[in-house]
Amino acid sequence: MNYSIKNYIQQGKEIVEQKLSSLYTDTNIPENLKASMEYSLLAGGKRLRPILLLASYHSFKKTDEAKTLRTAAALEMIHTYSLIHDDLPAMDDDDYRRGALTNHKKFDEATAILAGDALLTNSFELIAEDELLTAEEKVFLITELSHASGPEGMVAGQVLDMEGEMSTLSLEELEKVHEHKTGKLISFAIIAGAYLGNATETQLTHLKKFAYYLGIIFQVQDDILDVIGDQEKLGKPVGSDEENEKSTYPNLLGLEGAKNHLSAYTEKALQALQEANIEQSYLEQLLYYFGERDH
Amino acid sequence: MNYSIKNYIQQGKEIVEQKLSSLYTDTNIPENLKASMEYSLLAGGKRLRPILLLASYHSFKKTDEAKTLRTAAALEMIHTYSLIHDDLPAMDDDDYRRGALTNHKKFDEATAILAGDALLTNSFELIAEDELLTAEEKVFLITELSHASGPEGMVAGQVLDMEGEMSTLSLEELEKVHEHKTGKLISFAIIAGAYLGNATETQLTHLKKFAYYLGIIFQVQDDILDVIGDQEKLGKPVGSDEENEKSTYPNLLGLEGAKNHLSAYTEKALQALQEANIEQSYLEQLLYYFGERDH
Repeated sequence: MNYSIKNYIQQGKEIVEQKLSSLYTDTNIPENLKASMEYSLLAGGKRLRPILLLASYHSFKKTDEAKTLRTAAALEMIHTYSLIHDDLPAMDDDDYRRGALTNHKKFDEATAILAGDALLTNSFELIAEDELLTAEEKVFLITELSHASGPEGMVAGQVLDMEGEMSTLSLEELEKVHEHKTGKLISFAIIAGAYLGNATETQLTHLKKFAYYLGIIFQVQDDILDVIGDQEKLGKPVGSDEENEKSTYPNLLGLEGAKNHLSAYTEKALQALQEANIEQSYLEQLLYYFGERDH
Repeated sequence: MNYSIKNYIQQGKEIVEQKLSSLYTDTNIPENLKASMEYSLLAGGKRLRPILLLASYHSFKKTDEAKTLRTAAALEMIHTYSLIHDDLPAMDDDDYRRGALTNHKKFDEATAILAGDALLTNSFELIAEDELLTAEEKVFLITELSHASGPEGMVAGQVLDMEGEMSTLSLEELEKVHEHKTGKLISFAIIAGAYLGNATETQLTHLKKFAYYLGIIFQVQDDILDVIGDQEKLGKPVGSDEENEKSTYPNLLGLEGAKNHLSAYTEKALQALQEANIEQSYLEQLLYYFGERDH
């Protein structure tokens, strides 16, 4: 891996985590609720979505990321709420995430449900009260974020994923699940960063395509890692998808087929990125990073 | 009861329900998720919050309520999501609401969690995409609504309510629970309507006080109805609060004490309303309606 992009990712992670850890210092949130929200929000993770948002913004030769930080934090809060609710007994019933107890195991189910609700609700307030954005910018970002994470976005993906567990999906159906479940938020990251970086309409159109492929790439790589990954680095057991007879790219296409699919989509993503005609290479480097990561 | 206010409430209910039933006609929401969202959203209910919003708006001599309808719908969506999540086995574990199966009994727990998440998320999109509002108006409304329903608002109320079930609350503690759990959304209804009706800052300040007392009055009345109400009209069993040894106004103050508390707060609410100096009497009539309702 390229040292500089690794460094770039690490710096982005630190900036985002500093923002996240400062969110609830001066608030009037009941102690236990705040502890539950922060337990999951500050539990580490790759911070890929906010880093993508920063990288998309930086791609437009913007150097001061202050303007993006509340939106980046809001995006991570929505991702975090979705993990908390996804882990609940009624959903995936997971006891561990990233090597630590899931929220409802650390606290209790009721608190976990409410912590998720609180993070989701508060994400919109965070953007609405951002002093560095104009009212028009706030409305654009809130519209895009709520659409990406709502019943036609991420929540649709969760439902399609649940329904898909009862049958074997076609490649097209599997792609639809991932487009919604993870793709929509990844797409928001790219669009929000580019919009704040003053991208043109044409650039936004090409970057939406790029984001679509990137979202799929992310998921194909996740599926491949579940087959060949290192449990230690992943922080979760491998082989669980096959055990659960889940529809995955390796199960549908074979391991080599999944790898070929990854390469083909990487090509398509690169082409969309070239057509967007932006000068900085952060997004290209992150694309390669996605394709080569080991956790 | 005054015939005209009953009529006014009925008309408001119809306007709001027409809006709610048209929300998801042209959307791309998975069938089962949409069915679950609409099951609870269109399950009836008093629609008190959106009606209060309309009444607050009409109080400023505004006659065309089109400008308020998406915000009123968003408010009811947030109220509805909170009921769906509140009814879950991990929370209040209720099988029936308003005489019908609760969402997780009609569908399943996972779907109910996701339908709640979807309604919450979508409520902000609804306001953000309202073509009748300026960007500044949208930002004001989204800021107020997310604050009222988030971790310093309604969700805080849910947590305080859960924690309060383990002990006997003081009157002050009980009031804090209700101020957050139901008061904040009622307050939003009044503030949003007045804001869209071009209220002055001073008027908003007095109306906030009015809304605070109104929220408490609503709850005291609920508690009194649980003791003396008619199960048929309420659509839920009476006497459950005492059975559950819940902290309520009648339990804390006795039935007569609770009724006196209701009268005292009605006086305070009326005074705040007079100080707001608005010309139409809808809010005053609704205040009396709250104090006299039998369901």
